[in-house]
Amino acid sequence: MTRFIPAADWLQGYSRDNLVNDALAAVIVTIMLIPQSLAYALLAGLPAEMGLYASILPLIAYALFGSSRTLSVGPVAVASLMTASAIGAVTAQGDVDYATAATVLALLGGVMLIVLGLLKFGFVANFLSHPVVSGFITASGVIIALGQLGPLMGVSVRGDTLPHLVTSLMQHWNTAHGLTALIGLSAVGFLLFARYKLANLLHSVGLSERTASLLVRSAPVLIMLVVIPLSYFKSFAEQGVPVVGYVPTGLPAFSAPHITWDLVRELAMPAFLIALIGFVESVSVGKTLGAKKRQRIDSNQELVGLGAANAAAALSGGFPVTGGFSRSVVNFDAGADTQMASVLTAIGIALAALLLTPALYFLPKAVLAATIIVAVLALIDWNILTLSARFSHADFAAVLLTILITLMAGVEFGVLTGVAVSIGLHLYQTSRPHFAVVGQMQNSEHYRNVKRHPVLIYPEILSLRVDESLYFANASYLEDILFQEVNDKPALRHVVLMCPAVNRIDLSALEALERINARLQEQGITLHMSEVKGPVMDALKRSDFLHHLTGQIYLSQHAADLDLRGRQNELQPEE
Amino acid sequence: MTRFIPAADWLQGYSRDNLVNDALAAVIVTIMLIPQSLAYALLAGLPAEMGLYASILPLIAYALFGSSRTLSVGPVAVASLMTASAIGAVTAQGDVDYATAATVLALLGGVMLIVLGLLKFGFVANFLSHPVVSGFITASGVIIALGQLGPLMGVSVRGDTLPHLVTSLMQHWNTAHGLTALIGLSAVGFLLFARYKLANLLHSVGLSERTASLLVRSAPVLIMLVVIPLSYFKSFAEQGVPVVGYVPTGLPAFSAPHITWDLVRELAMPAFLIALIGFVESVSVGKTLGAKKRQRIDSNQELVGLGAANAAAALSGGFPVTGGFSRSVVNFDAGADTQMASVLTAIGIALAALLLTPALYFLPKAVLAATIIVAVLALIDWNILTLSARFSHADFAAVLLTILITLMAGVEFGVLTGVAVSIGLHLYQTSRPHFAVVGQMQNSEHYRNVKRHPVLIYPEILSLRVDESLYFANASYLEDILFQEVNDKPALRHVVLMCPAVNRIDLSALEALERINARLQEQGITLHMSEVKGPVMDALKRSDFLHHLTGQIYLSQHAADLDLRGRQNELQPEE
Repeated sequence: MTRFIPAADWLQGYSRDNLVNDALAAVIVTIMLIPQSLAYALLAGLPAEMGLYASILPLIAYALFGSSRTLSVGPVAVASLMTASAIGAVTAQGDVDYATAATVLALLGGVMLIVLGLLKFGFVANFLSHPVVSGFITASGVIIALGQLGPLMGVSVRGDTLPHLVTSLMQHWNTAHGLTALIGLSAVGFLLFARYKLANLLHSVGLSERTASLLVRSAPVLIMLVVIPLSYFKSFAEQGVPVVGYVPTGLPAFSAPHITWDLVRELAMPAFLIALIGFVESVSVGKTLGAKKRQRIDSNQELVGLGAANAAAALSGGFPVTGGFSRSVVNFDAGADTQMASVLTAIGIALAALLLTPALYFLPKAVLAATIIVAVLALIDWNILTLSARFSHADFAAVLLTILITLMAGVEFGVLTGVAVSIGLHLYQTSRPHFAVVGQMQNSEHYRNVKRHPVLIYPEILSLRVDESLYFANASYLEDILFQEVNDKPALRHVVLMCPAVNRIDLSALEALERINARLQEQGITLHMSEVKGPVMDALKRSDFLHHLTGQIYLSQHAADLDLRGRQNELQPEE
Repeated sequence: MTRFIPAADWLQGYSRDNLVNDALAAVIVTIMLIPQSLAYALLAGLPAEMGLYASILPLIAYALFGSSRTLSVGPVAVASLMTASAIGAVTAQGDVDYATAATVLALLGGVMLIVLGLLKFGFVANFLSHPVVSGFITASGVIIALGQLGPLMGVSVRGDTLPHLVTSLMQHWNTAHGLTALIGLSAVGFLLFARYKLANLLHSVGLSERTASLLVRSAPVLIMLVVIPLSYFKSFAEQGVPVVGYVPTGLPAFSAPHITWDLVRELAMPAFLIALIGFVESVSVGKTLGAKKRQRIDSNQELVGLGAANAAAALSGGFPVTGGFSRSVVNFDAGADTQMASVLTAIGIALAALLLTPALYFLPKAVLAATIIVAVLALIDWNILTLSARFSHADFAAVLLTILITLMAGVEFGVLTGVAVSIGLHLYQTSRPHFAVVGQMQNSEHYRNVKRHPVLIYPEILSLRVDESLYFANASYLEDILFQEVNDKPALRHVVLMCPAVNRIDLSALEALERINARLQEQGITLHMSEVKGPVMDALKRSDFLHHLTGQIYLSQHAADLDLRGRQNELQPEE
């Protein structure tokens, strides 16, 4: 039972104490989620109520199937931006409405995640390297923040790339609406003050650090509590301030989206990317929180949990969801013990959808834009650029390209570029592996690179260490390098291929070894191997290579060296 | 000079002897090439004369820019099949004629090869693993042979996948034309006899092995010499035997193909694949022949040489060409010293285009189909399946999928699948690397896997050997595995990560190491590393990791073991 429904695990022995903790956390998370859900729905280009819907059933689905006890799922900034970009593309043709496209996106993503999870394909997420994801999120944060400057100031801004956004902002900024901008900028100011100053202030007047930080998280709701009455009594809407407007009261209808094959084909790729990026983010949050309480996160179970959450979102009028960093941290800090906190949060949001929607009519959109801008500022982190630049060209190239392409050509291209570049550079590096001629370190049985260490070598013996698994991409390179070394050395009688770093050998490499063996034989040189690992040796035994090999396979390089030196008469070391 | 035009190298000191050798080889290759060129043009779905055109200027272009002295370029079977498939797709829409599409294909491929060569991107070809290429060629051979059964027997057969071809053959085989089938099957019979028996026969009556084998190569021309007069005098064409028909006399007009942007976009991918497969085949032939005369083949120069040949084909009414195996072997065996042999061959083919075309009118197409069928039978090699099955699951999966997809979905899909599968499996394997707990082999300083060798280990020390470079795809796996081992061992005080097989470390892996170090520290365990290679150590030094590392970096595992055992009091080995 617990194998398929992890919730069964914590439901056993669920105590009254747990319930108190979970209920408290649920109240705090609910307060935080109401403005966030509305905001991210608008960011995704969808009606505000879809944000609430995406924060009800998905939470319950994840609570049943997810493996983290404290992860909180729902709409998040980057996935919402990607959703906006994906549905913008398909609805431009006019055949589909936004809401349908968004739910299809969630359904496809959900099904894909569940299938990947059942097939134990969690490793797929490993190919999104951390620097690439960081770069991608930073660039997405910039695009989101710039895009929200429009609603923040009552300007109509269009575009999902940096050039479009900047052009659009420059063309229209003089149409900014005074009162809207005043509300928006004040909200940003208050939120920034709350984030960077208020916690310290509250802490200094005697509140505990945790309480102070949790209070600060309710700043967006505080603004709503002030601005909604103001907007109502001062008739902001009539003065031209864009407000959220009519939000239907009630719970989402449980219904399957209307799917066409064309829509599936067009949305499959963006759905996959949104799901995968969401999964990577979510697992990373889940692992961070899990480590603090020594709770294990199972990647494959997480795929199923997030897949179920997205399927639930699709069936209840929502859009793509994932585990969010800030909401999960609030849930954790507020003391949630189990996913019961999320179930109670879902009930809280459902109550909001039933009771609070009339009040939302008067909420200026600029306030939600302010919430988004301040939230995404925390995502923007240029450190990854300096960090990777210092560390390696390959990492830096992957990060830089991801950021540039995301900014210039949009989120989908950006993340694909990042993945392609990091895989491509990895393959390129392994296709031109490091080789070292090695010799014996004095007074040891240890053999190291002649270029880095003072070692003994003999003109009759060439010991070459290959620093890579041998496979199709470097098979011919091995041949080239080896004969370059061999051609330099007229006295040579023995070549020892030292293989501690050869973790795998494939058929192409085996054929290269056969050719090397034969060519050396023609030149009267014997080929030996040393420190061949178990799995590689097993592979060699499955082929005929060991019958053709002119020399021997030695357990250690030292054994090879002793034996071959013994075969020659009175060898004199060269250095 | 010789850097850009390798021909300058052999032109210096070109002797009368060289000329005699080259001229003799040219005569033999020319005789072999005439039927082959015509046949491959028809295979590509093009007029016969384009085959001759593709065997004139391209040979001269390669002679100037290629690095092999004996490689012979021109139309080959697999590239012609791929050409037919690619141009079939674009001409189906009716905007372009076949000839234009074929020349654009050659031009695009040529430009791509030249650019790759100038950028020194020859390594790209390494990603087509040898088993994948073998499987692809075998499957292509099957498709070609089946497709040629149509013209061989006067049946109209359509399709470029196994299911289409088989269905088409089954529907139409009863429309076979008796006389055509008689001519075709007789030609196949004679060619098979020539290939498998005649050489031995000639050898046994006193001819040298080389002369016998060269004579056998002219079998297709012998058939032409018999069948063309027969066809003329017996009016085969009037009896319904499809003949080659009118072939314009003269040399190709030197002209650029009419290119549209749409055409470029549609043909870019197939052009790239044809060029790449051609390059891989060609370099492998070139290297095989080069090794026999100790002549070096430079991959990047080969890209330029083949690129120039394809560009020349495009500008003179030809279609994609590459270095062919059989023609190059004939050229080599016939004693060619330099590329002058190819220049003279080009002149020979040009003379054929000027003088022989009226005679070609009467040549039954069935004879050319027979030539193709017997030629491609040599390409079909199912051994690669058993070989790879015995060797490794990954190689076998790549080969099998390449063959199946090529047969079922066509050449383009087939080769892309092969590349994707082999890269994907390689990445999958490196994402779940082999780990071994190691201990000291008695009476040595050598440390090996506890599961494979009798070794000493101590409960306070865990030495873990990581058998892979650490990078984004396996960073989190490393963390999982390490803590699985650590959690088993309550007495543990030291973890030594033994890194002789870690050839590279990237930023994602560095972050994983930082997390591992911190988590071990929380548990009171010190993290050490041993046998860290130079390039990896350089990378670690560029980060802050060495400041955070709780333990030490040891030059050898033995040094680590001695030191850590010394720190503990009276350690008792476990086994």
